Amino acid sequence: MTQELSKRLAKIREQMVLCGVDACLLSTTVNILYANGSIFSGYYYIPVEGTPIRFVKRPAGLNGENILYIRKPEQLPEQLLESGLPLPEKLMLEGDEMSHGDWMRLQACFAGVELMNGTNDLRKVRSIKTDYEVSLIRSSAEAHVRAYKRIPDVYRPGMTDNAFSIEIERLMRLEGNLGLFRTFGDMEAFMGSILTGENASVASPYDFALGGAGTVSNPIGAAGLELLPGKSIMIDMAGNFTGYLDDLTRTFSIGKLTEQAYKAHQVSIDIQQRLMEEMKEGAVCEDLWELSLKMATDAGLADCYMGTTQQAKFVGHGVGIVINELPVIATRSRDLLKANMTVAIEPKFVIEGVGAVGVEDTFLIEKNGCERLTKLDYDIVDLTK
Amino acid sequence: MTQELSKRLAKIREQMVLCGVDACLLSTTVNILYANGSIFSGYYYIPVEGTPIRFVKRPAGLNGENILYIRKPEQLPEQLLESGLPLPEKLMLEGDEMSHGDWMRLQACFAGVELMNGTNDLRKVRSIKTDYEVSLIRSSAEAHVRAYKRIPDVYRPGMTDNAFSIEIERLMRLEGNLGLFRTFGDMEAFMGSILTGENASVASPYDFALGGAGTVSNPIGAAGLELLPGKSIMIDMAGNFTGYLDDLTRTFSIGKLTEQAYKAHQVSIDIQQRLMEEMKEGAVCEDLWELSLKMATDAGLADCYMGTTQQAKFVGHGVGIVINELPVIATRSRDLLKANMTVAIEPKFVIEGVGAVGVEDTFLIEKNGCERLTKLDYDIVDLTK
Repeated sequence: MTQELSKRLAKIREQMVLCGVDACLLSTTVNILYANGSIFSGYYYIPVEGTPIRFVKRPAGLNGENILYIRKPEQLPEQLLESGLPLPEKLMLEGDEMSHGDWMRLQACFAGVELMNGTNDLRKVRSIKTDYEVSLIRSSAEAHVRAYKRIPDVYRPGMTDNAFSIEIERLMRLEGNLGLFRTFGDMEAFMGSILTGENASVASPYDFALGGAGTVSNPIGAAGLELLPGKSIMIDMAGNFTGYLDDLTRTFSIGKLTEQAYKAHQVSIDIQQRLMEEMKEGAVCEDLWELSLKMATDAGLADCYMGTTQQAKFVGHGVGIVINELPVIATRSRDLLKANMTVAIEPKFVIEGVGAVGVEDTFLIEKNGCERLTKLDYDIVDLTK
Repeated sequence: MTQELSKRLAKIREQMVLCGVDACLLSTTVNILYANGSIFSGYYYIPVEGTPIRFVKRPAGLNGENILYIRKPEQLPEQLLESGLPLPEKLMLEGDEMSHGDWMRLQACFAGVELMNGTNDLRKVRSIKTDYEVSLIRSSAEAHVRAYKRIPDVYRPGMTDNAFSIEIERLMRLEGNLGLFRTFGDMEAFMGSILTGENASVASPYDFALGGAGTVSNPIGAAGLELLPGKSIMIDMAGNFTGYLDDLTRTFSIGKLTEQAYKAHQVSIDIQQRLMEEMKEGAVCEDLWELSLKMATDAGLADCYMGTTQQAKFVGHGVGIVINELPVIATRSRDLLKANMTVAIEPKFVIEGVGAVGVEDTFLIEKNGCERLTKLDYDIVDLTK
């Protein structure tokens, strides 16, 4: 792990140099887990040169080099000086994640130090995975596929979407899913979403690909609807088996769906396979989105692509410690794909009278192409067979 | 629901007047759910007088009075003026919850307006429940009790803590638990924690009552340990059945535990029952904590009260939309209990060679006393019987 953390540290420092900061102070769970390899409550201080220091509030009893216990951030400057480190002139903080209150408290501690919002820079760093991180996402994808293969076993006629979801959640947990669904920004979901019938067209406050009524307290996904003949069931759960997430969506049905539904499902597969031809280092995210939209439009399905009541303007997103890492494969995104990015591609359609159809898979971007990590059949599975 | 929301609005406005602000702009999921009764992405603007306005980004298609769609916060001032509302002189924001980046963006939108951090004030408002909110917590507590009663049914010899947890999670979900474990601050857990044997003494980075190794990615609770004879199993899951959480912990065992363990468990019950006599409007939180600590000390159990490696300095906390609402029943907390607060009381001990013992229940504070909402036997249940 030491070598792995050295690689991540080098990547963070490369970005720090680009930003012209001489130190970075991490305090969010996600970035501390990324940079330190495990979670503590406190601050991870990274000078652009020299040894990083872990300023730990909790847990008690950590041993190791360069661990200093503190009770409050006001101790940081004196502790840095006692450690022989100069105070930084320009300090990177996670300004789009830490609260305004915490930022102001640190600004008071580091009077005269210029603070810089590094959230987006750190997200960029995390968007390109090390080989070890890729191996964790690959393991998540494999476990995810094993769990999804067992989905037909837990279906019972007359079930509601909630009851079905509970059994699928259990399958995922039995395969080792940790449960936590980590996101960037103000989005919440339990382990994922399951959408059947009309519920697929219900707009959500969250920026997921599709919505669903969910509950008042968490308006996303299953809404207590019975699984009925002729309806599709889209299952989109986060694959958090290793702390690194893959993303995988498959469509199921109760009996036969309409021709239109099968056609749209095939267009989703076609879009994904066409994008696979284009995805490699240097591909422009916006171009991939536009290509997907053109294919949906050419198939006469523009009106139900990525929703109906509310249409998402993206077809994919990075995955990693959170479900929505960079890049976003979206309208107006000039981001370029890079080798060792891991992205989920999810062209989806909402078909009136049926529900949602389509597929989502997770891919590893390579220099000259990409690899699908979620190796599972694409077909709509009829649960009554 | 209209009447209920009017009550909540009046409570928020009372606090706004105390703070001397003429408007409040809510943007976090928790406070929008509280004030609006449902979640949207955007801003809920509350002038100290007149009609609140919902500025909605998502979901599409909301109908109702005083709903204005916006794409970005920069539209807020012009939209307020177009609605005939003056710009505020002093505006309350959720400064300890919203990101620094979001705060700065709003500050730029509202140039010249004094911004005020209202996070703690809004938490104070939420700490005193309306009767309807109490009814939701009561419903959660009842469902929680039903699920816990079935725990012995899903135990199988040779299980690990993880396998046992998965079956208990399923029981909770089948009773209607929404799964989401909402917290204030940087704490994360899946549906709750289960601690057996030595794992109970593992210190956690999070500020929960007890820890447990969990996983690298979520260091809390179950750690893949087999459930062994002579060990306790403490089950502490969040009761989110209605969007409002209760909290309930019970202790189980594999066969017989040591005398010391049963004695400590009884001290936990004694502490809780003694606190029940003291809990009513006007009780001082610190005094309740000190009383609990004195009872633990008198029983010769101070060294293992609320942990060993790392000892929590609180015995209870408010519950509501998040698991850790105000007040905190903790050292140095001069907060007073008030009628219609809902608090969980969790005196716990970690016994060497056995694991954690103790109970946690959720109480409604009343003018002259309190009511236990989680009506379940206190005894340690031997799962092998």
